[in-house]
Amino acid sequence: MPKIVRFHEFGDASVLKLDEMPLPEPKSGEVRIQVKALGLNRAEVFFREGLYLERPQNLPSLIGYEASGIVDGLGPDVTGFKVGDKVSSIPAFSMTQYGVYGEYAIIPARALAHYPDHLSFEEATSIWMQYLTAYGALVDIAQIKEGDYVLISAASSSVGLAAIEICLFHKAIPIATTRTSVKKNQLLEAGAYAVVVTDEQDLAEEVNKITEGKGVNYVFDPVAGKFLKECAKATAHGGTIFEYGALSKQPCLFPLFESLQKGLIVRGYTLFEITSDPNRMNNGKKYVYDRLQEKTFKPIIDKTFKLSNIQEAHKHMESNTQTGKIVVTV
Amino acid sequence: MPKIVRFHEFGDASVLKLDEMPLPEPKSGEVRIQVKALGLNRAEVFFREGLYLERPQNLPSLIGYEASGIVDGLGPDVTGFKVGDKVSSIPAFSMTQYGVYGEYAIIPARALAHYPDHLSFEEATSIWMQYLTAYGALVDIAQIKEGDYVLISAASSSVGLAAIEICLFHKAIPIATTRTSVKKNQLLEAGAYAVVVTDEQDLAEEVNKITEGKGVNYVFDPVAGKFLKECAKATAHGGTIFEYGALSKQPCLFPLFESLQKGLIVRGYTLFEITSDPNRMNNGKKYVYDRLQEKTFKPIIDKTFKLSNIQEAHKHMESNTQTGKIVVTV
Repeated sequence: MPKIVRFHEFGDASVLKLDEMPLPEPKSGEVRIQVKALGLNRAEVFFREGLYLERPQNLPSLIGYEASGIVDGLGPDVTGFKVGDKVSSIPAFSMTQYGVYGEYAIIPARALAHYPDHLSFEEATSIWMQYLTAYGALVDIAQIKEGDYVLISAASSSVGLAAIEICLFHKAIPIATTRTSVKKNQLLEAGAYAVVVTDEQDLAEEVNKITEGKGVNYVFDPVAGKFLKECAKATAHGGTIFEYGALSKQPCLFPLFESLQKGLIVRGYTLFEITSDPNRMNNGKKYVYDRLQEKTFKPIIDKTFKLSNIQEAHKHMESNTQTGKIVVTV
Repeated sequence: MPKIVRFHEFGDASVLKLDEMPLPEPKSGEVRIQVKALGLNRAEVFFREGLYLERPQNLPSLIGYEASGIVDGLGPDVTGFKVGDKVSSIPAFSMTQYGVYGEYAIIPARALAHYPDHLSFEEATSIWMQYLTAYGALVDIAQIKEGDYVLISAASSSVGLAAIEICLFHKAIPIATTRTSVKKNQLLEAGAYAVVVTDEQDLAEEVNKITEGKGVNYVFDPVAGKFLKECAKATAHGGTIFEYGALSKQPCLFPLFESLQKGLIVRGYTLFEITSDPNRMNNGKKYVYDRLQEKTFKPIIDKTFKLSNIQEAHKHMESNTQTGKIVVTV
């Protein structure tokens, strides 16, 4: 029987279990894929801990947003895919209903996409979450343009690195932040115009130097907590701060004084804003597909693990030592 | 010599003094008006306390944003006004440079406007701050439209009441909040579709009933502090919360969870966003003038005081018992 990853209780990485389960059958609108590679996301760590935006109604629970593989079963009413197609999943579903960690996965057809041929399975599972998430904020909403300064915090994450590539494509100027100097050179190599090491440098002061007193036009931040106020100090008059995560567990203070003085916008953002709207989703899919096809975007893979080492893979994500996507091969 | 209100130290209302000063002379671009009435604003309380967005560089300091009166002196390079014109001031200057409390005031010509003839001096000093502030957020930025639910907190303030009138003009649905039930009927009479008494009722729960589960599309809030989170709970998916003040002295927590889940925008806003842009300012002036001229808008005056009772007028503002504009006649 296929091995499927589930957790029977909330907790640390050790709650992830490889359960042997009957081969799942796709229902109407669903596709079964034979999974070849999985891409890990911070959302799954929070989901496993019971601290994500949504919690499973029942345990044990499936888990996982991103997989690449081969279509090997189609439910009724599915069009656009056939058995044998190479596909990867877009996180346009709820993990309370679907999860892709395992040798086989059931995925709604609307959350599956073909991908450019030249990508490996490892690369193909490292595209949709990262590029669509950064695209939604920076392109769909902000419409960044040449010369805009964009502060990208936690920049060594897969989404952060995708945001750097997107900035460069639009000739905007990506300024990366990282906590320690360990990843500084990797971020410069990935295309950051400048890197601020937040444990050692004052963010607003450095941004002030880098932008010659202007401040950044946009902030793309998954940290929140006390860091939001630092971001606000570094933001230009009329700028927008996207908060797309909650990595910090500290209370998040709203930078009221800076917001009043500079007319700042602080905006909660998740990829669901894009995936829940068919037009915006299609525009985003085409944008990402085209940039991959023309090789403007190239996903950076940090490290690969075997499915039997799924716990180690999660621990590695929680170590915060990675730069790029953590992938599990199946 | 004319009496001019100044404060020689930061503090409570008792620091406001009527100083006898030489008649001030308008310099280039400035106009002297003989003041007939003053409109009080919360900003002036904060300014007097040294807690406003800006602080005077030297004491004693002038104070006051809004006056109506008669032009009686013109500096060089002033066009559009002549001695004898009836005018009122727009808060498009810094109180660190100008202040209008007194028998005479120097005001930059760009911050003066004619007003419709049918308004009394008391009414004429009760228009620009309140209508332009609400206009900037709700019309210029939000472009509210028919059927939008707009939550207006601290709704009995002059700006809150102006926001109600603006909502009604655009066929949007104003929901007012007030802390106690004392002002509930006045707010309903002023046009609020519904009133939530926040000391007695749960805001999100009441808004949920009033909007039939939809939540409000916009919040227009000067309170901040812990109230921001309550507002976020009452806001619809994709809604915008304008924070335009800091009445609460509590720390202001950013509603991260609600913002992520609903893609909320929390936006700092002050009138300076409008007055610092000549095009937006002119559009706003015309909008307010036209609504006053056609008598769609009618400023509500709470109470009038004499200039010699300026301390009592400030104390009355701080009592939070007013509904509408507090005016001082000169």
